[in-house]
Amino acid sequence: MQDRKFLLFIMDGVGDRPIPELNNKTPLEAAKTPTMDKLAELGITGHMHTIGRGITPGSDTAHLALFGYNPYEVYTGRGPFEAAGTDLPVKPGDIAFRTNMATIKDGVVIDRRAGRISQGTREIEEALQNITIEDVETIFKVGIDHRAALVLRGPGLTSDVTGNDPKIENKKPKHIIGTSSEAEKTARILNQYIKQASEIMEPLEINQKRINNDKLPANYLLVRGAGKSPHLESFSTKYGLTAECVAGGGLYKGVASICGMKINDNHYGTGGIPTDISSKVKAAIESLERVQFVFLHVKGTDNMGHDNKPIQKMEFIDEIDIAIEPFFDLLPETLICITGDHSTPCVMRDHSSDPLPILIVGEGVRPDHVNEFGERSTMRGGLGHIIGQDIIPTMLGLAGRVHKFGA
Amino acid sequence: MQDRKFLLFIMDGVGDRPIPELNNKTPLEAAKTPTMDKLAELGITGHMHTIGRGITPGSDTAHLALFGYNPYEVYTGRGPFEAAGTDLPVKPGDIAFRTNMATIKDGVVIDRRAGRISQGTREIEEALQNITIEDVETIFKVGIDHRAALVLRGPGLTSDVTGNDPKIENKKPKHIIGTSSEAEKTARILNQYIKQASEIMEPLEINQKRINNDKLPANYLLVRGAGKSPHLESFSTKYGLTAECVAGGGLYKGVASICGMKINDNHYGTGGIPTDISSKVKAAIESLERVQFVFLHVKGTDNMGHDNKPIQKMEFIDEIDIAIEPFFDLLPETLICITGDHSTPCVMRDHSSDPLPILIVGEGVRPDHVNEFGERSTMRGGLGHIIGQDIIPTMLGLAGRVHKFGA
Repeated sequence: MQDRKFLLFIMDGVGDRPIPELNNKTPLEAAKTPTMDKLAELGITGHMHTIGRGITPGSDTAHLALFGYNPYEVYTGRGPFEAAGTDLPVKPGDIAFRTNMATIKDGVVIDRRAGRISQGTREIEEALQNITIEDVETIFKVGIDHRAALVLRGPGLTSDVTGNDPKIENKKPKHIIGTSSEAEKTARILNQYIKQASEIMEPLEINQKRINNDKLPANYLLVRGAGKSPHLESFSTKYGLTAECVAGGGLYKGVASICGMKINDNHYGTGGIPTDISSKVKAAIESLERVQFVFLHVKGTDNMGHDNKPIQKMEFIDEIDIAIEPFFDLLPETLICITGDHSTPCVMRDHSSDPLPILIVGEGVRPDHVNEFGERSTMRGGLGHIIGQDIIPTMLGLAGRVHKFGA
Repeated sequence: MQDRKFLLFIMDGVGDRPIPELNNKTPLEAAKTPTMDKLAELGITGHMHTIGRGITPGSDTAHLALFGYNPYEVYTGRGPFEAAGTDLPVKPGDIAFRTNMATIKDGVVIDRRAGRISQGTREIEEALQNITIEDVETIFKVGIDHRAALVLRGPGLTSDVTGNDPKIENKKPKHIIGTSSEAEKTARILNQYIKQASEIMEPLEINQKRINNDKLPANYLLVRGAGKSPHLESFSTKYGLTAECVAGGGLYKGVASICGMKINDNHYGTGGIPTDISSKVKAAIESLERVQFVFLHVKGTDNMGHDNKPIQKMEFIDEIDIAIEPFFDLLPETLICITGDHSTPCVMRDHSSDPLPILIVGEGVRPDHVNEFGERSTMRGGLGHIIGQDIIPTMLGLAGRVHKFGA
């Protein structure tokens, strides 16, 4: 029984509310989901409050809770997770910033996105490597278009610093200041780094070419969203399980990565729509051959909620249901949990605190009487109302992997 | 309403999982339980997580939780409960040890159980009374066969000491040492006590007889499992209820005793199988005439789970159901709760974190729609998912014995 495997499948923002144009069903209830319905029939179901009742989770805090961490204890801001999601190797204690490459002229920010620069940014990334200021190491990594991540690593740093982004164009960048008594060093180093980086960026070949082509050069960095990378007990230490993550969106990979999961990018998922769900399912099954725990994430359901597109949300769930048919081949040895990270009701166009349907299926589960996977059917499921942090302990308990407390 | 009585009936390890040879029913679901089913119909049911979701309880921590104590706050190890279960009057702050009577020869332990001595050990118990070392009182009490309990009582003692049991025969006993800076005194006293006890035991008449009959003498004590008796608020102070315990197993009597319950041993229960459940039920009913709260414990269901004997587990539940028919005579004045301390699924051969069915019946209860007492039927019960610590407060609330919080 100790060799059981675990699959946590998250449909981002899947939970919703009754929608008149879907005959007052939710997108999940209205979708054609023979696979999920059968898994609900074989398994035990319930309602899941990711962080707690009446709490609307962010994407980062939601996934921390799903992985069994208390977000109130460990969450320090989105920056470190975003940085980790760009493959930047964030370590506990690092200070991470979301960063824009921008255009400065005569001390004034004339474009916060350097003319939405999209090509050739690797040259900038390479030019900004190995900059050390005092005893602080800096790591800079470009993302998509003008976006990048910056990490400061060294003793005595804090995230209590302002950013330098003026937020509107044709203004001077702000001087970065510390907001606590220990933050003077971090602010000093950051101001100096930005000055030094600008001097390095200005003469780069890419910028000379851009100027020659009447494009704005990327000669300045705007930083914001300072966050200290949290000191998390690693997932493998916490549970004694090796783990991999299959996701498209950077944030989800970032949370998984900071928890110590390896990232399996061997798929064609995009972190949006359109995407290739089947290739992700295939990757997750490959991961399960290597490791004990796999986190599989699909994002599109959330996007359709934010955009108030209930029919497209329903159709995307139809697609998911077909793509996850191979889950049946994993049963009963693998314990599979299907749920979401939060509800994103179309009518809200945003996350909500509505609980989500959840199912757990696999050997050892006591099946309840629910044979349909939807918001209303699972209200009477055998798991009752469960919080996100209890999901993995519940699955481990089913597999006999929980230590006895007492004797 | 203030004269209402309370009966908590625990079937140890009763919870289980679907078992193929029982037609995918659990032993409780497959058993013939007209009494429990009727009580479920008259009462309110649900699922009970003894300590919390995804936590596998030990027997000691489980019963602390069922009695309303937070085991994370009060649990200090099994030793004191075992000692208290042998009628040894353990007090808060006492250091208790599980003890073997052994045979030593030329400084070497040649039998860790003194030839499994079974008769005449009272002579040893009597000979070892009233030994005081420095300012520390010692209390020694024999149990079944070679087993005994030792308690040290006095100022400045700690449980941070090793034992002297070499674990294998034909080795010297280990020298006891302290594992913290405050433990030097406890180790010194314990080493001296063991030396002194051996000198007293050696010449006893029982040992001379054993030697004459080619049996090994019980001339040495091996101690292990040091535990400091916890400072618990007594059950009667906590709830304002007089309380008695009817149980066979020493550990259960020990936990009840340390909580301040009186032990009613006026029955033929054995703490195992075979046992006389009816005589325990009779004793519990007699206890209810004397006191307000009675804890009734039956052990065999757990044994059959540990031994992976689902049919015997089912048949034992059949017997329990017949034996508890007199519960009907207690209704409605007595509030009766039936549940277990943890699941012991046959397939696991050990405790698990699976929740247990629970029912509460008696005057004031709002009956739900469940009319069968089993793992699946109670999933939809009116109590929902309840933790062990909330059981007694729920029963007290039904009886109007809970103080108003606020005005």
